[in-house]
Amino acid sequence: MNITQGNFPNSRKVYVPGRLHDIKVAMREIELAHTKDKEGHIFRNEAVTVYDTSGPYTDENMKVDIKKGLPKLRDEWIKSRGDVDQLSQLSSDYGTMRHQDSSLDHLRFDHVSTTPLKAKEGKVVSQYYYACQGIITPEMEYVAIRENQRIDELKEKYKQHPGCPMGAQIPETHITPEFVCAEIAKGRAILPANINHPESEPMIIGRNFLVKINANIGNSPTTSSIDEEVEKAVWAFRWGADTIMDLSTGANIHETREWIIRNSPVPVGTVPLYQALEKVKGKVEDLTWEIYKDTLIEQCEQGVDYFTIHAGLLWKHIPTTVHRTTGIVSRGGAIMAKWMLYHHKESFLYTHFEDICEILAKYDVGVSLGDGLRPGSVADANDRAQLGELKVLGELTQIARKHYVQTIIEGPGHVPMHLVKENMDLQLKYCDEAPFYTLGPLVTDIAPGYDHITSAIGGALIAWYGTAMLCYVTQKEHLGLPEKNDVKEGVITFKLAAHAADLAKGFPGAQYRDNAMSKARFEFRWKDQFALALDSEKAMAFHDETLPDEGYKSEHFCSMCGEHFCSMRASMEVRELAEKVNEKKKEFEDFGEEVYR
Amino acid sequence: MNITQGNFPNSRKVYVPGRLHDIKVAMREIELAHTKDKEGHIFRNEAVTVYDTSGPYTDENMKVDIKKGLPKLRDEWIKSRGDVDQLSQLSSDYGTMRHQDSSLDHLRFDHVSTTPLKAKEGKVVSQYYYACQGIITPEMEYVAIRENQRIDELKEKYKQHPGCPMGAQIPETHITPEFVCAEIAKGRAILPANINHPESEPMIIGRNFLVKINANIGNSPTTSSIDEEVEKAVWAFRWGADTIMDLSTGANIHETREWIIRNSPVPVGTVPLYQALEKVKGKVEDLTWEIYKDTLIEQCEQGVDYFTIHAGLLWKHIPTTVHRTTGIVSRGGAIMAKWMLYHHKESFLYTHFEDICEILAKYDVGVSLGDGLRPGSVADANDRAQLGELKVLGELTQIARKHYVQTIIEGPGHVPMHLVKENMDLQLKYCDEAPFYTLGPLVTDIAPGYDHITSAIGGALIAWYGTAMLCYVTQKEHLGLPEKNDVKEGVITFKLAAHAADLAKGFPGAQYRDNAMSKARFEFRWKDQFALALDSEKAMAFHDETLPDEGYKSEHFCSMCGEHFCSMRASMEVRELAEKVNEKKKEFEDFGEEVYR
Repeated sequence: MNITQGNFPNSRKVYVPGRLHDIKVAMREIELAHTKDKEGHIFRNEAVTVYDTSGPYTDENMKVDIKKGLPKLRDEWIKSRGDVDQLSQLSSDYGTMRHQDSSLDHLRFDHVSTTPLKAKEGKVVSQYYYACQGIITPEMEYVAIRENQRIDELKEKYKQHPGCPMGAQIPETHITPEFVCAEIAKGRAILPANINHPESEPMIIGRNFLVKINANIGNSPTTSSIDEEVEKAVWAFRWGADTIMDLSTGANIHETREWIIRNSPVPVGTVPLYQALEKVKGKVEDLTWEIYKDTLIEQCEQGVDYFTIHAGLLWKHIPTTVHRTTGIVSRGGAIMAKWMLYHHKESFLYTHFEDICEILAKYDVGVSLGDGLRPGSVADANDRAQLGELKVLGELTQIARKHYVQTIIEGPGHVPMHLVKENMDLQLKYCDEAPFYTLGPLVTDIAPGYDHITSAIGGALIAWYGTAMLCYVTQKEHLGLPEKNDVKEGVITFKLAAHAADLAKGFPGAQYRDNAMSKARFEFRWKDQFALALDSEKAMAFHDETLPDEGYKSEHFCSMCGEHFCSMRASMEVRELAEKVNEKKKEFEDFGEEVYR
Repeated sequence: MNITQGNFPNSRKVYVPGRLHDIKVAMREIELAHTKDKEGHIFRNEAVTVYDTSGPYTDENMKVDIKKGLPKLRDEWIKSRGDVDQLSQLSSDYGTMRHQDSSLDHLRFDHVSTTPLKAKEGKVVSQYYYACQGIITPEMEYVAIRENQRIDELKEKYKQHPGCPMGAQIPETHITPEFVCAEIAKGRAILPANINHPESEPMIIGRNFLVKINANIGNSPTTSSIDEEVEKAVWAFRWGADTIMDLSTGANIHETREWIIRNSPVPVGTVPLYQALEKVKGKVEDLTWEIYKDTLIEQCEQGVDYFTIHAGLLWKHIPTTVHRTTGIVSRGGAIMAKWMLYHHKESFLYTHFEDICEILAKYDVGVSLGDGLRPGSVADANDRAQLGELKVLGELTQIARKHYVQTIIEGPGHVPMHLVKENMDLQLKYCDEAPFYTLGPLVTDIAPGYDHITSAIGGALIAWYGTAMLCYVTQKEHLGLPEKNDVKEGVITFKLAAHAADLAKGFPGAQYRDNAMSKARFEFRWKDQFALALDSEKAMAFHDETLPDEGYKSEHFCSMCGEHFCSMRASMEVRELAEKVNEKKKEFEDFGEEVYR
């Protein structure tokens, strides 16, 4: 298996300790070169700490063995709360069956646990429940520290550089463990943390936090193997996926998922309906609540952190889809619509929603209420099918909260820019501010091959308006299954869209990395630019295409404009000249304004 | 030279005749396959006509010879107005000198004209002047027809398909030759059309028209040749560049430009300051108004359609740039600031602005008022340097208009999303609604290697708010000079951003192509999807990566989800099932709503 490990250029893994709990929050620190002025004076550029989703894979001191899985970071936290039982066997029929099937031994993850955790009788173990009790868990403190990216420390360091504009630009933060707890308690944020996925590093999804991105992976009946999917997953973490969804629909879904979860430092989501359908060999009419329920339990006990459940698409909505330009484009939605029409019955996901919540609450699995009726074309955007379903998702949110199930709402698809805000506003209204999790939206239909971009445009926009997590779209959307490189391009594209939204929202510390990059750019610190870039490898490769020699990395120009036409270089000269003019400013009163503000 | 010719899949060049003038407006018509239903009934999908910037290169009936240049489409229109003289020699010293230098013979375009056109004494020949007189020129009628993309004809055709939703979605147009004339007369739109560039197909830049995009090409001191630049230019037209700017700063700028203009069906812009600086061997302090003036005349007589002139950056602005994070990042701006500081004088571009306008009016060369102080980092966005200059650009607009010079205003750079709208609003206010022409903006600084995307996000946003033309940014921005593939990626990326804005603005006909694409997608007409895509080649290549066999192009699924999990396929089955249910609806009154609205 081709797992990429090792850290990024000039970067090292750092661990920030907690104050309330004995925790160490993993981050990436990027060391920068000093600035030298013409006289040879040296100015220190403080290291930049950035949010890091890559997990132990980028810790040079840790050896990851895919066959053993990641360290169980949260195991002790979970068990010490005293509200879980360790079961003596798997609760799902299917999980048990797969485990007992010796023909699958070669596929099976070595250290698979058959003794999962489950809430004790009468207990609820969700972060939402704890938050409602005012309990600040280690997970909550972890995310508070993580979201701040050490800006307090940075602010402190800049006290030694009085007058430095870099320091002046760092805002105060309001992200405290208490704030995290309060946001979760209000249902405005979720902290996906299945008690059976102790490997995950806590993260939070909510519009008062950094915008997150999800990367979909998973095999399909036409392509790919377990190896490839684990490889893709680790690749996605590396480049910035905050969660991944395993959307496998091919062979050995159960085993593939086990491998992925045991090696995932980020929460893992799934659409259990896909696997349920595989269990009935793709025959929609054969789906039953019992099969679905067993699938939920099977996946809860494997450690899936959130489930997409298309429970809001009802019998009454079906007619509203018939004259749509692109009908139903959500796989889960289409399956459930077909099922309802076969059986002339209301969706079992809806009629059994309370039962579903009861199961999820036992493991702290979140629900992501699926938008089975998301528009597949700009022509269908914000139509009564889509908005009718959204209202039902709002009703279901209230039910889920009653059971202390952490809840997010899925949205968009294809939506032209002028209709994006209405989506966000209605979602907040109908769903009582539950976090919004959107696919794109894609702002035009006519750019297949570039749909990572059409969707990054809509994604940046809706995230600025308040969406908490963006589901990435790759350039293969509408055309084929993403390969490893497509995954990376998709992740980076959504990372930049999410970051653009963080900037627009004025999230504490979001702008610091931009400022550090721009300062490095203005000072021609090329290696620092590469290190601070979302994709260091590509930035360096593009630079080196025309100027590969090492010496050019300290040159004060690039091949874009060349030496004499470099505006940055000229601008530095302007600065020097202007300072000279300023020194003699009595002679040049006509300068109008002073150089120094 | 590797010039790509030939049309796109299922496409042919069509020419729509004028009513007021004897003109033929070039467009691209995309033929679509029929829709077949299960019973074998056939439904016709009307051909889609799209805006076409590719010029004669995609006309299968026309043989383009780069050495001879394109046909002189507007020659007769220009001359028949009776307001121009054919000169007996070039007016610029430099042009004359280059022409007489036999050592350049091998570089020189064969059919170079030494007898350019110029307005007769006392005459103004700009489209703006004509519009102010209420004269509807052939150029104006051309753009009116071009902007409409035959939606009237399409509307007519759909009268034969009563009830078809595709027809119902086509709006009425208000884009008439009279409207075009009125918009130009108000200064809200420009029609760049140098009388010495008769090869160009008229196009319009204004916020009540389709959003346009510009592609920058041009050699640099470190790389590329004339051949490469012409090749890149034709490549840029092919993929959708509405104008190109030749920003050459290397060797043989004069000759490179001649080749480009003679082969360009789109308006060509330049920054004359770059060439003026080359003439003084890069020594900014040696620049003079005389050298600059001769450069303007040289380029006016070659046929450049608009000039970027950084006349708004004044002496008083310099101090406001000194403490910026990234100083002055506009090359023209940095050059002029340096010049002012060397000479302790106000910018000659400002002090001679009336003289400049007098020259430009003689050839109908537009002015694009350069933003020498555009922010090069989000930290510098909307600061007093940028906005102070914008105010001056507004004053200059009034001067240019007095001389009937067509005027656009350059803007953005790096601007976070929440500050984008302020740019647009202030520009409209300060510059009396002159068209805005922006670079991006890039909405974050931290994604070098992906700046086509960071800028497409800002570009789509600002175009929706009212920007008339977007200057593309390639993925090589900040890192190196774009190669041919970067040009294509940049053009397509900005094409989709511009189109997203057209959709959001509800421009007549903008949505029709999306609807046709989505219908093709829902009906699995793969070849039609490829043909309707902004980049047919890439869409097909991505599809074929996993399913290359010809047979798969008629299959009702793709490799993304495979056969059983294809939501579109399932959705079609849902539609059929729902229709059956509807037929028996008396038996199923609980359906709630009717299938047929």
